[in-house]
Amino acid sequence: MPRNAFYAQSGGVTAVINASAAGVIETARKHRKHIGKVYAGRNGILGALTEDLIDTSKEPAASIRALVHTPGGAFGSARYKLKGVEKGGHEYERLVEVFKAHDIGYFFYNGGNDSADTCLKVSQISATLGYPITAVHVPKTVDNDLPITDTCPGFGSVAKYVATSMREAGLDVESMAKTSTKVFILEVMGRHAGWITAATGLAQSRPAEAPHILLFPEIAWNEEAFLARVQEAVRQYGYCAIGASEGLQDKDGKFLSESGLKDAFGHAQLGGVAPMLANLVQSKLKLKQHWAVADYLQRAARHIASKTDLEQSYAVGKAAVELAVKGMNSVMPTIVRTSSKPYRWKIGVAKLADVANVEKKMPRDFITADGLHITPKCRAYLAPLIAGEAYPPFENGLPNYVRLKNAAVKKKTGEYKP
Amino acid sequence: MPRNAFYAQSGGVTAVINASAAGVIETARKHRKHIGKVYAGRNGILGALTEDLIDTSKEPAASIRALVHTPGGAFGSARYKLKGVEKGGHEYERLVEVFKAHDIGYFFYNGGNDSADTCLKVSQISATLGYPITAVHVPKTVDNDLPITDTCPGFGSVAKYVATSMREAGLDVESMAKTSTKVFILEVMGRHAGWITAATGLAQSRPAEAPHILLFPEIAWNEEAFLARVQEAVRQYGYCAIGASEGLQDKDGKFLSESGLKDAFGHAQLGGVAPMLANLVQSKLKLKQHWAVADYLQRAARHIASKTDLEQSYAVGKAAVELAVKGMNSVMPTIVRTSSKPYRWKIGVAKLADVANVEKKMPRDFITADGLHITPKCRAYLAPLIAGEAYPPFENGLPNYVRLKNAAVKKKTGEYKP
Repeated sequence: MPRNAFYAQSGGVTAVINASAAGVIETARKHRKHIGKVYAGRNGILGALTEDLIDTSKEPAASIRALVHTPGGAFGSARYKLKGVEKGGHEYERLVEVFKAHDIGYFFYNGGNDSADTCLKVSQISATLGYPITAVHVPKTVDNDLPITDTCPGFGSVAKYVATSMREAGLDVESMAKTSTKVFILEVMGRHAGWITAATGLAQSRPAEAPHILLFPEIAWNEEAFLARVQEAVRQYGYCAIGASEGLQDKDGKFLSESGLKDAFGHAQLGGVAPMLANLVQSKLKLKQHWAVADYLQRAARHIASKTDLEQSYAVGKAAVELAVKGMNSVMPTIVRTSSKPYRWKIGVAKLADVANVEKKMPRDFITADGLHITPKCRAYLAPLIAGEAYPPFENGLPNYVRLKNAAVKKKTGEYKP
Repeated sequence: MPRNAFYAQSGGVTAVINASAAGVIETARKHRKHIGKVYAGRNGILGALTEDLIDTSKEPAASIRALVHTPGGAFGSARYKLKGVEKGGHEYERLVEVFKAHDIGYFFYNGGNDSADTCLKVSQISATLGYPITAVHVPKTVDNDLPITDTCPGFGSVAKYVATSMREAGLDVESMAKTSTKVFILEVMGRHAGWITAATGLAQSRPAEAPHILLFPEIAWNEEAFLARVQEAVRQYGYCAIGASEGLQDKDGKFLSESGLKDAFGHAQLGGVAPMLANLVQSKLKLKQHWAVADYLQRAARHIASKTDLEQSYAVGKAAVELAVKGMNSVMPTIVRTSSKPYRWKIGVAKLADVANVEKKMPRDFITADGLHITPKCRAYLAPLIAGEAYPPFENGLPNYVRLKNAAVKKKTGEYKP
C-alpha cells in the first residue's frame, strides 16, 4: 500500500528551492505504487507540528511545473529548530502523532546544515519512537557550506547574481571615477563561509576590472592592509570595487557588523558591513564612496538564476524521492562533479550523519596568499556553477511567478501550540 | 564639406546610455555628407576641455553595435558643470579652441537636467563666441525628471529592475515571515523625484503583495503614519515590504539620511535611509527586519533592461543626429506617447530653453491620498515603460559586455588644466 509523503522547506529560501519542490512532487506523482499524496508543511516544519498541511495533489501539473521558475518558498519556510525530547519538549512525538494521523511514511526536508540535523533525527524515529518512516534530506543553501556535495542548490544562482551585479556596477563606477565615486562596496551574504564573496570575484576577467578586493569571513579583518590595497587600486585603475561578506570578522572572531540581535538558532543577525567600510574609506582616505547591500535581492533573483543550479536543484528533489522509494533512509542526494572541463556532474548519495551540522568553509588555497582575492583554482571550481541562463516567463514587463492554491488538509488531531 | 561631431556622456550613467551612443555613432556613419568623424569625450566634457578625444571611427561596426547591450559609460562620463565666462572662467572659449582645432561642427551631449543647460549654452556659441556649431541634447536620466519628454531614457530599465527585485524579495520575505523577517525595506534612487520609488510599486498586483508601502521624496516623512501602516500590513498579510526613496525628507525638506541619526550598529548614516527605517521598525515595533540598498546595481543592471527603454535610448541618439544634420540647433529629441493602450510612441522635439534646469516631479495624483502608494493613473503611465526584455549575450555564465579601444585623437592645442 502506498503511504503519503511530507515535504517541507526549511531556513532561508532561494531563487530555486521551489525547483526542488517541483522535483519532489513531480517525481512522487510518478511513483503512485509507493507514494500516495505529497503533503507540504505550511511554513515548513511548523506545518507538521500544528498539523497545517497543504495538499499538493490539488495543484494542477502546470502549477507544479511553474514552481521551477518561481523564487521564494511556495509553501512557506521556517527558521525553527525542533526541540528534542532531552530538552523537555516533545516535538518529535508530536510529529509522529501528525504523521500517523495522515499515514505519512516519507519525510523530505529541504534545507541546509541545521535542517540536515533535524532530518537526521526524523530518520531515527523508527528506532527511537517506533514509527516507521523514511527521511531524506534535500540539500539547499545559498551559503554553499554543506559537506560532501560538490555544491549546494541555491548557491549557483546567487553566485551568478552577485558576479553579474559586480560586473555591471564595476562598469558604472569605472566610467564615473574621474570626477565622482572612486570606491564602491557591494555587501553580500555568507555568514561564516566566503563562497558568495568568492563568486563576486568571477566578475573580474583582468586585474583592472571589478572587483579589485574581496573580504572573506575566513580571513581576519586587517584595516591597514585593506586601506593600502584600496589606495593602490585607485592609483592604478582609477577606482576600486570591493566585494565584502556580511560575516567579516576580526581576528577574535567578532563580526564587524554585530547588531546585538540573534535569530532563532542563536546566530547573530548581520547586515551593514558595507556602510561601515564606506565610512572608513571616506574618513581615512578621503575618497568618494558608494555602497550597496544586496540582501534578499541576491537569493531571490530568479530572473538571473543559473541554469546549472536550476537543473541541480530539480535533480536533488527528484533523486530524494527515488532514494526514498528504494527504501534508503537517513541520506541526502549530493552533486558529484565528474569532470571540470567540460563540466559534468551526476547525483550521488551521502549519509545524513556525515552531513548534519558540518560546515564547509572555503579551502585556504581558494583564496590568494594576501587574503584579498580568489585563486585560479577557486575560479575553476566556481565558473561552471553559474553557467547557463534560465529566464522566467515575463508578463507586462515583470516575471510571472506562480502562486499556488495551497489548500489545507483536514485536521485529524487536537490543537497543538509549538 | 562634412564637419566632425563631438559626443559626450554626462552625469550618472545608466544601463542603456551606451545604446544612445550607438544611435548617435551609427546614424552619423550614415550621414557622411554632413558628418565626418564622431569624436567622443574621454570622461565626458572633460575630454573636450583637455582635448582628450576618442576617435570612434577606429571602432569596428560590431563594437559600436555591442554598445547596445553594454551598461555604464563606454567613453567615461563626468560630473562636471562648465564655468561660464561670467564666472571668470573661460571654459566655453576653451571648448571653441578645441572644436576649431578638430573642425567640430556638431555637439551631442548625453545627459540630464544640468547637462541640458550646458548643451543650451554650447548651442549659443555661434551667437556668443562666433563659432558655428549645432548642439543637440540627447536625454538620459534614471531620475525621469526631464520635462516635456514622456519619459527619460535610462529610467524604464531601472524601473524594471526595482519592480522585479521587489517582486522577488517580496516572495522571499512572505515565505519566511511566520518565523523570521517581517519587515523588508528596499532603498532606491531618486533624490528629488519619486519616479523610481513609484516603479517599485509595479511589483504589486494585489494588496497582499509587496510592496505594501512606498515612501516618496515628494511626501513629507510622517513617522507615526508609517509605523501604523507597517503594523497594519504585518497584521493583515503577515509581513510588510517597503520601497523607500533615498531622498526621503521631513516637512522642512531635510533629508532623513542626513538627520544625524545612527544606524543599528552605531555608525553615522551614509545616505542610508533603509537602515535608518529598519532601525526604527526594530526599536519601535519590535519586528524583525531586513534591508537592501540597490545603489548602482539598479542603474547598471543591463541584464534586466527594459526593451522599450532600450529602443527609446537608441532612438533619441539616432534622432539627435538627424535633427542636427537638418540644421536644428538647441533642441532635444523627446519621447511622445501617442497611445497608452496599446502603448505607442514616437520621437518629438523640444527646445532646450524649455528643458534646461526644469525638474519634473511626480504629479500629486500619481500618489494615493495617504501618500504611501501609487494610483492606477501612475500605474498606467509606468507600466509600458518596463515592457519587453532585451537580454545581453552571455559567455561562461556572465554578460559579455564590450570594451572599446578608445583610441586617442592626436592633440593639436596646448596643454590646458581645467
